[in-house]
Amino acid sequence: MHRTSFAEMHCSIGQSLERVGEWWTPLIVRDIYLGLHRFDDIAENLGISRNLLTRRFDTLVADGIVERRVYQQRPLRHEYHLTAAGQELVPVLMALMAWGDKWATPAGGPPVRLEHDECGQQFTPEVCCSACGKPVTADAVTALSGPGAAAGPGTTVLARRHDLPAYRPGTPTV
Amino acid sequence: MHRTSFAEMHCSIGQSLERVGEWWTPLIVRDIYLGLHRFDDIAENLGISRNLLTRRFDTLVADGIVERRVYQQRPLRHEYHLTAAGQELVPVLMALMAWGDKWATPAGGPPVRLEHDECGQQFTPEVCCSACGKPVTADAVTALSGPGAAAGPGTTVLARRHDLPAYRPGTPTV
Repeated sequence: MHRTSFAEMHCSIGQSLERVGEWWTPLIVRDIYLGLHRFDDIAENLGISRNLLTRRFDTLVADGIVERRVYQQRPLRHEYHLTAAGQELVPVLMALMAWGDKWATPAGGPPVRLEHDECGQQFTPEVCCSACGKPVTADAVTALSGPGAAAGPGTTVLARRHDLPAYRPGTPTV
Repeated sequence: MHRTSFAEMHCSIGQSLERVGEWWTPLIVRDIYLGLHRFDDIAENLGISRNLLTRRFDTLVADGIVERRVYQQRPLRHEYHLTAAGQELVPVLMALMAWGDKWATPAGGPPVRLEHDECGQQFTPEVCCSACGKPVTADAVTALSGPGAAAGPGTTVLARRHDLPAYRPGTPTV
């Protein structure tokens, strides 16, 4: 299947989606996080074809989100584990889960409850401000151009409105 | 393009992805959040075909994430705005952006900086615990079965391991 790549985008959402935005990929990360580490278990759990799962794992490993670990030598068998980057993706998925719990609740209610080991409480993941600690809402945030902002695929109109320099493919942005 | 639906999954990540997990969709939400409300602007900004963008908008409107507002009667013209559900998705995208800033940094550095209007500080979005307020990390959270947990597509093996009731399609889960 051909799809447009987001790899050239001057946007960290685009860059993130390029790595973990493919159909099935967030659920593969979820499964590993929830303790499924073997190919067969994940394939069965998701009901995904082995070819497709192999492709997804190849990408996740190449992008440094998942790593293969040998657990048996003869025959050679691997388990799949999250790297540090993969681990840090998990809270983002938890925030997405909380959104789904609220706005797209599965029949019967939330399928998963989260407990925070540090405080011992069940909790809802909230996206908060690193400066003041309060939950952030869309209307209380101002998005400003950062050092990597530039016109280019995915930011053509935005860059024009914000008077950003044009992006020339191949030109290093300093 | 045919793809497996996540609509039957007993998983709020799956349910969320069913609504906003398609390729391009998170960037469409991003664009509306960043102030692009007209079809032509978003099509040009993303470099997306008009047919594909129309399909994405139809889904986003049907799922209650985006709404069309008339801004001109003759000829009839619409703008696209985020609903409450769409607004609440934005912090999740900000958390994904922060992940991308760190683990998939675009050339030149982060393209966007966020400022929290409430405290006036630039900040990094962090996923925090609603109970104690601290940032959550994957290894400090325990995922427990919630009321809607059940075996089914996407949770076959997980449900078996957690000894959950089998899901019978069509059977209401109370």
